[in-house]
Amino acid sequence: MENDVVMPQATVDAAFLRIVPDGAAVPTMRALAVEMPVAVEVNGLGYAVMMATPTALEDFAYGFCRSERLIDDAADVLDVDAHPAPQGMVLRITLVPERVERVLERVRHRVSESSCGLCGIENLEQALRVLPVVAPGAPVADAAVFRALGALRALQPLNRATGAVHAAACCTADGEIRAVREDVGRHNAFDKLLGAMAREGLEWDGGFALLSARCSYELVEKAALAGCPLLVTISAPTSLAVTRAAEAGVRLVALARADAVLAAV
Amino acid sequence: MENDVVMPQATVDAAFLRIVPDGAAVPTMRALAVEMPVAVEVNGLGYAVMMATPTALEDFAYGFCRSERLIDDAADVLDVDAHPAPQGMVLRITLVPERVERVLERVRHRVSESSCGLCGIENLEQALRVLPVVAPGAPVADAAVFRALGALRALQPLNRATGAVHAAACCTADGEIRAVREDVGRHNAFDKLLGAMAREGLEWDGGFALLSARCSYELVEKAALAGCPLLVTISAPTSLAVTRAAEAGVRLVALARADAVLAAV
Repeated sequence: MENDVVMPQATVDAAFLRIVPDGAAVPTMRALAVEMPVAVEVNGLGYAVMMATPTALEDFAYGFCRSERLIDDAADVLDVDAHPAPQGMVLRITLVPERVERVLERVRHRVSESSCGLCGIENLEQALRVLPVVAPGAPVADAAVFRALGALRALQPLNRATGAVHAAACCTADGEIRAVREDVGRHNAFDKLLGAMAREGLEWDGGFALLSARCSYELVEKAALAGCPLLVTISAPTSLAVTRAAEAGVRLVALARADAVLAAV
Repeated sequence: MENDVVMPQATVDAAFLRIVPDGAAVPTMRALAVEMPVAVEVNGLGYAVMMATPTALEDFAYGFCRSERLIDDAADVLDVDAHPAPQGMVLRITLVPERVERVLERVRHRVSESSCGLCGIENLEQALRVLPVVAPGAPVADAAVFRALGALRALQPLNRATGAVHAAACCTADGEIRAVREDVGRHNAFDKLLGAMAREGLEWDGGFALLSARCSYELVEKAALAGCPLLVTISAPTSLAVTRAAEAGVRLVALARADAVLAAV
């Protein structure tokens, strides 16, 4: 009865009391973004449990494997199956046989380090692995960045409903938005976008990525691994994000608002 | 020459171009919040690499061990040493001998699961471990929540400089702020606060925690483990945060702004 499987929703309504200073408490309903455990299995190996919004999990599978350096491109993925389990979702990914060694290597490495935190990467050197250097592209016009910024909000239905999720968008060199993915986690949102691009054969083509988030170093690493030449984020970057972006040749534009943006130099 | 060790700063200045629509690009400097790898060692065992702002790392050590369920209280910690390494910080924590078994158990568990993601917790059941139930306290007056909200901003120097870090505050039942800690990561900020409270012997005493962040389920779990009866967050909760808070008896107030707050019912 596989067809009867009920997939989880992206939002759930919850009851609150709205309280104002020196006023009465008024019952109100509000849509919450769903966050649930997603157990990722790669070729039968338990690989990770991620907390994510249970939408576009097939896209997430491709992007996650790319960001984890398990695959080179979409052709390395044979099958993805997302199905509900009592406590969350199980995401079963089958890679081509040639890539299984990378999965085993990663799992073996984790066992030998018996570590935690950064997906089992134990020591400081390994925490900051060497990134590929992105080939410089033609500079994106400032107007394109402002155009994409203006267009993003209308393409964030889940955030409009909940006010609590991040969006990742793939934009053309002109600032047109070609694809958007949302998730409670900014890293998941970017992995979903990168996975969707891989599945649909979308390249950056001189365009850029736009994230409705703070610019963490993880976003920079995902951008570098995906060959993204320009990463635009709505909030501020951390010191490590700026350093890593410079190393990887990823241009950064941060604190991107309608009235001004900051470009890292 | 231990005394000559230079500890890292919490902020670093970086050069940007400020670009406005249809205007010229103007060079500008901006302070960035420092984010760096912190390798956590517990009784000589490599335990995790966390990305954090390198301040109040002693506090962080206590709070992290508590949130990881390695210790019951501050007396379980014999020593904490934070020192710079070429690629980040090393945080060496020494627990009393009676607690080493918990560390080993956790590390062994991780090895057997050879996992990733949620600190090595592999499967879905383990992703959501049973939380202690917090004893219900006297209800906090709404006015106290608004008072703390109004007072927090002045106590966030790192965020004022960078606009990019979270704060966690311990508030009295009257809404007076007793302690604040900041970090680029909301979970780190809360761990720093909880650690500071443990070290200084601060109890909740009918008060509450205030976080300048989205209410993720991890914040709820940390609150439950620390016996915090009320968690106030400035942004929205996720579905899992609301569910877990109800299970653990942690009251939630979210979307806490100067003009209104939402209390979960």
